[in-house]
Amino acid sequence: MQTLTVNLGDRSYPIHVGENILDRLGEFLDGLNLRGKAAVISNPVVAQLYLDPIHDALSQAGFEVTPILIPDGEEHKNLASLATIYDGLIKARLQRRSCVLALGGGVVGDLAGFAAATYLRGVSYIQVPTTLLAQVDSSVGGKTGVNHENGKNLIGVFYQPKLVVIDVAVLRTLPRRELVAGLAEVIKYGIIADSALFQLLEEKIERLLSIDRALLIQVIATCCAIKARVVEQDEREDDYRAVLNFGHTIGHALEAATGYRQFLHGEAVGVGMAKAAALSLERGLTDRKSVDRIIQLIKKSGLPTEIPSTVSIANLLQGMEVDKKAAGDKIKFVMCNGIGKTRFDWLAPAEIAGGLNA
Amino acid sequence: MQTLTVNLGDRSYPIHVGENILDRLGEFLDGLNLRGKAAVISNPVVAQLYLDPIHDALSQAGFEVTPILIPDGEEHKNLASLATIYDGLIKARLQRRSCVLALGGGVVGDLAGFAAATYLRGVSYIQVPTTLLAQVDSSVGGKTGVNHENGKNLIGVFYQPKLVVIDVAVLRTLPRRELVAGLAEVIKYGIIADSALFQLLEEKIERLLSIDRALLIQVIATCCAIKARVVEQDEREDDYRAVLNFGHTIGHALEAATGYRQFLHGEAVGVGMAKAAALSLERGLTDRKSVDRIIQLIKKSGLPTEIPSTVSIANLLQGMEVDKKAAGDKIKFVMCNGIGKTRFDWLAPAEIAGGLNA
Repeated sequence: MQTLTVNLGDRSYPIHVGENILDRLGEFLDGLNLRGKAAVISNPVVAQLYLDPIHDALSQAGFEVTPILIPDGEEHKNLASLATIYDGLIKARLQRRSCVLALGGGVVGDLAGFAAATYLRGVSYIQVPTTLLAQVDSSVGGKTGVNHENGKNLIGVFYQPKLVVIDVAVLRTLPRRELVAGLAEVIKYGIIADSALFQLLEEKIERLLSIDRALLIQVIATCCAIKARVVEQDEREDDYRAVLNFGHTIGHALEAATGYRQFLHGEAVGVGMAKAAALSLERGLTDRKSVDRIIQLIKKSGLPTEIPSTVSIANLLQGMEVDKKAAGDKIKFVMCNGIGKTRFDWLAPAEIAGGLNA
Repeated sequence: MQTLTVNLGDRSYPIHVGENILDRLGEFLDGLNLRGKAAVISNPVVAQLYLDPIHDALSQAGFEVTPILIPDGEEHKNLASLATIYDGLIKARLQRRSCVLALGGGVVGDLAGFAAATYLRGVSYIQVPTTLLAQVDSSVGGKTGVNHENGKNLIGVFYQPKLVVIDVAVLRTLPRRELVAGLAEVIKYGIIADSALFQLLEEKIERLLSIDRALLIQVIATCCAIKARVVEQDEREDDYRAVLNFGHTIGHALEAATGYRQFLHGEAVGVGMAKAAALSLERGLTDRKSVDRIIQLIKKSGLPTEIPSTVSIANLLQGMEVDKKAAGDKIKFVMCNGIGKTRFDWLAPAEIAGGLNA
């Protein structure tokens, strides 16, 4: 097991990355001085697989456990599911010293985190991400929230977990499509911050796809460490943290334009990264070879790189304008500046459209 | 105009208390470097009276103003009203640098603050409280949130405003019943922290009720200063801040037991303070003379001091158990320790029932 720390003063917390470590949850929570009641937020698909062992581990550690299930899927990351969670927390009479545990992917994690941040003005929460995407991205860094019909994550807060427990063994039950989607964020870390990671992925992406557990632990810990360092520098995304949005401005708009039904988040980010790389080339910020390698790796992992013909550029731009990253008339873009480096650029809608049409 | 500061590091903010100062809003916001879009959250009753001047003041300062109205009344401090505000903010495309202004009483302030805290993971907000209760209590200190059908303020966050603007001139349009309800919190500050304020109130409460503006500015500034000092010591109510809940544990339960229809918050707090004082006497924490003075002043201000016969003690206790202040089996009570001083005490439900029946 590897343990790293997100250093945020009194909001610091450990990330454990290992294999078959879920049954040690009681021990981990005891180390954090958490006890009493615990709510486990999950969805029926994940609960079927992992709720029993988690329930046992927590019960044996003396917790009174209440499972709260919300429907599976990004379309349920909304205020209605949040209300379901509040009802469950209140019915179980969770108190300020109780804790909330998110068992699932990004939807569960974002919802549970937001509920924990806002129930009784804040209770402790633990992330137990069960998708690759959540393990390398959404479970770390304290972004919580829900979608609005007009855009993703428009409602939320920054609220750090007390602990993240990443068990790569759970990835064996993850549908391959979701595993591939998770690789989008892994590739992103290579592009924005770590050319060695990028090269490792070019060489060994098939082994990741075949669930090589030792390699997964190494890669996931590397991604979490990169994210931790970014979050430590700019917890509330006043500026620098936005580098993590590489590929996400277009990705989010693509998800919105297709009603959150056609693309998994990681798939949309795959397209977004390919397009952001192409835009970076067009703006003279990177070279063709880097862009080719990026698009090649995205394709090799099994992710899409093209905007479907059914989505108009106008539609995409509309999505970006209510995006959180907009400020005034121009849109802040994370550009690739050679593999492993980034640069911010402010683009007018027409410039983006030009790049996307190119 | 008096200006005081709530000192919370990078979350510090000024409170301006004065007469006819609403038209200086643009100047105040400019001093805080706020510009661009502003949403004014209010209700139809307050908007009818004060939206136009506020709108003018902000427009003249260069803001693009969007009013968002929610229905008047505590029963609308819920997730549905919050969704209305989110819809309005998103429709007006407020961005991270925009600001939200709460124009109204505690319901508007708590809702607007929660919306500001959670829209795009946090935008700036300004409190312009228009009730005495909001001026001396809810507009200062960063408690935001909504009610759940099972209890008050069960959902919310701590989120400090960037500025509080208290104009005593607006109190002339406040219904007398609400003015009286506001006095409950004013009296509370005297009981918990300031025997001189308490004595001033004993002597001059009629002048406050007849809207003596100079006296109101003095008293409100005193109350805000007391609250600021408490919040500075314990912003997130880990412990000491709970002194502000004197009279509130019983008060909240009374509001819940009567479906939030029979009592204004301040009226319920009036009853709660009288009962907390009586409990303090029974537990040997204060003397009979102090309790008599407290009950006398509450009555003199026009507030109730008795639990209506229609409300059973069992019902009240039920309300306290889902109260945020509960931890384990005993309930944390703020006790009076002579006028101007408090003490915490942990009471079992049976002990509370005994005291309330006495």
